[in-house]
Amino acid sequence: MSFSEKDRTLTSTDAPVPVGAHALGDALALLRASPPLVQCITNIVVAQWSANVLLAAGAAPAMVDNQNEAGLFAAAADAVLINLGTPYNDTAEAMLAAVTTAVANATPWVLDPVAVGPLAWRTELAHALLAVGSPTVIRGNASEILALGGGTGGKGVDSLDTPEAALTAAQSLALRYDTVVAVSGAVDHITDGNRTVRVSNGHPVMTQVTGVGCALGALIAAFAGTVDDPLIAATAATAMLTVAADGAALSSIRPGSFAVALLDELSDVSPGSLAERVRLS
Amino acid sequence: MSFSEKDRTLTSTDAPVPVGAHALGDALALLRASPPLVQCITNIVVAQWSANVLLAAGAAPAMVDNQNEAGLFAAAADAVLINLGTPYNDTAEAMLAAVTTAVANATPWVLDPVAVGPLAWRTELAHALLAVGSPTVIRGNASEILALGGGTGGKGVDSLDTPEAALTAAQSLALRYDTVVAVSGAVDHITDGNRTVRVSNGHPVMTQVTGVGCALGALIAAFAGTVDDPLIAATAATAMLTVAADGAALSSIRPGSFAVALLDELSDVSPGSLAERVRLS
Amino acid sequence: MSFSEKDRTLTSTDAPVPVGAHALGDALALLRASPPLVQCITNIVVAQWSANVLLAAGAAPAMVDNQNEAGLFAAAADAVLINLGTPYNDTAEAMLAAVTTAVANATPWVLDPVAVGPLAWRTELAHALLAVGSPTVIRGNASEILALGGGTGGKGVDSLDTPEAALTAAQSLALRYDTVVAVSGAVDHITDGNRTVRVSNGHPVMTQVTGVGCALGALIAAFAGTVDDPLIAATAATAMLTVAADGAALSSIRPGSFAVALLDELSDVSPGSLAERVRLS
Repeated sequence: MSFSEKDRTLTSTDAPVPVGAHALGDALALLRASPPLVQCITNIVVAQWSANVLLAAGAAPAMVDNQNEAGLFAAAADAVLINLGTPYNDTAEAMLAAVTTAVANATPWVLDPVAVGPLAWRTELAHALLAVGSPTVIRGNASEILALGGGTGGKGVDSLDTPEAALTAAQSLALRYDTVVAVSGAVDHITDGNRTVRVSNGHPVMTQVTGVGCALGALIAAFAGTVDDPLIAATAATAMLTVAADGAALSSIRPGSFAVALLDELSDVSPGSLAERVRLS
Repeated sequence: MSFSEKDRTLTSTDAPVPVGAHALGDALALLRASPPLVQCITNIVVAQWSANVLLAAGAAPAMVDNQNEAGLFAAAADAVLINLGTPYNDTAEAMLAAVTTAVANATPWVLDPVAVGPLAWRTELAHALLAVGSPTVIRGNASEILALGGGTGGKGVDSLDTPEAALTAAQSLALRYDTVVAVSGAVDHITDGNRTVRVSNGHPVMTQVTGVGCALGALIAAFAGTVDDPLIAATAATAMLTVAADGAALSSIRPGSFAVALLDELSDVSPGSLAERVRLS
Repeated sequence: MSFSEKDRTLTSTDAPVPVGAHALGDALALLRASPPLVQCITNIVVAQWSANVLLAAGAAPAMVDNQNEAGLFAAAADAVLINLGTPYNDTAEAMLAAVTTAVANATPWVLDPVAVGPLAWRTELAHALLAVGSPTVIRGNASEILALGGGTGGKGVDSLDTPEAALTAAQSLALRYDTVVAVSGAVDHITDGNRTVRVSNGHPVMTQVTGVGCALGALIAAFAGTVDDPLIAATAATAMLTVAADGAALSSIRPGSFAVALLDELSDVSPGSLAERVRLS
């Protein structure tokens, strides 16, 4: 890939690549050695899939998403995922409770602002969650990140924008909330506002399987519960999912069998193969 | 297949077949050229599966099913699916809001009255939705269609009746609500009350995979958001799903691998192969 | 496997094996001949998977889990599954209504106390359900069974204890509630307090697929709706799932393709192969 002039300017401060491939392999080795307990408050579409992605990768999912227990459970979790795919009044309360506990305990938490922008209620919910405290990582597609930064957002759950177009918004969002922003797309962009990493693994068939992006959010939470540097955590998760997708696409680029192969490949990725196969820039 | 005398009488006004195979291929070409945004308010069992079926077929699913956003979002959707599989008080409110918007904007909407009949609360909900305005298509199994037309319905989610036995009820339901009724079964029957089409593709293993019927409802919504004639929309969706099932059954008739192959085949069906392989009568 | 001295003492009253392999095959033949209607009030993670497991095995799942209908529907069901994976205020009410009907009608019901112990609200809910009347079977991992018996429970949804360590608790729980307790693990232990059966089929990859234990709960409900002896029902379900897992593991021990193969194998298990392949002790 080639960078536009604008990209060069924006990333001029962080060349060379701020995250090394070996740090990603090390993160995976740590995750496998001590599986993080990831509390997922996510949506009804991807709940099973996200749990299976976490299990295949080596993490321990726990979906405690009712308002009576979510806050309490967050105190025991190694990381918390908040995904706004299908929020309801009850689960919105659970999200706020879990984030409140996570912030109080300095437990890593990840915000996946699905469809934020065109939908006012969940956009307010996202801002209410951000007001409790800074997430460790925000993961979204370009439209969602633009919307969270003040733009208008996408059409439904799909992005109308490219990660490249959202990079400025991502960087300023990262600085504003002292967080890491991961923008998913053909090339994934991950930034803490100062340092930016790009991961260029993956395959277009990933967009034909529901919840691949949502599962990435869950995987980022797992790595955020494993390593201290959120930029490494978000990059390791992105690398792991897309390296596995590269492998799965060699088996099949038809959506049903690709999804099955993706879980298989996630369980096969080793620290060594992750470091070797990831394409960082 | 052969028709009973009763069927001959009922369909005497609509011979020859009122929908041509090429119109179905054309509908699929349109859908692929401009993927419809389908708002799905569906059940927790089939949410992932329905989204994956829509994605594999080429449509864009969006599950916005909370009462704070469902009405607003319907204004942006190309079609709305209402599936009564696991309704709750909250999502029932969301369904009414989405249908109200759809009717006001003349946006196509599809009603899938899962288990209507033996269960009074959802039966009332179905009638409350119908009272807002006519759906574009009603899709159900024979027992559900009979129940919606005033009969007693089936046992749980399974049909105790054949589509043939439900055809009179389907035709009068279609005329009463000025809609199209699609009755799923070994031979699918689709009628607007005057015209009736039968699709005889498909395989019995489809009944061993949960949510194949529900996914058909979603696919009908996608086609209803693509073409103007609801009879063509319902027939194209039925044809696409069952033609794909024919292909998948060649790979496997065991339920796990059949379901995977069905998604693969849906992504492979072309306008040409759809028109060629569908069996209409 | 070898038994510890403690195990010998505990099981000294029930040697030889209290359930014969042929009784399990007979139970499966009955289930296939007359598919039980299983009402599942379960969690959003495993709803689709549990339905697909039941369909593949030959049963008829019905997920009626709202508080307006759950009690009424239980009167028509052959068995009721209550799974505490993701309870909400609304579905907790539905659970209580369904169990009340089940107890009143002597309809078999199964309690799967997911994550009971560390989470107070669902632990109270479990005890509220038990106070309505005795379940036919309680199925859980070792930590959940220990917690329900008064211990502290596990970490999230995973067990920190072995079935062997939970056997005393399982036996006293069974006697206290006049029920059968099935403790899942590398070797499954099933007891009515006096008689104890062990099933040693299965493969570790089962723990890498979400909801395998939850699906076992659903399958136990299906068998409890088929045969009168709950010990045979719980053992038959455990045998069927783990014998199918043995077959699936021959195809693949990678989690994505294993899960697909497990559904395939469930549909293939015959009464004869079940009786032949199960390893009871």
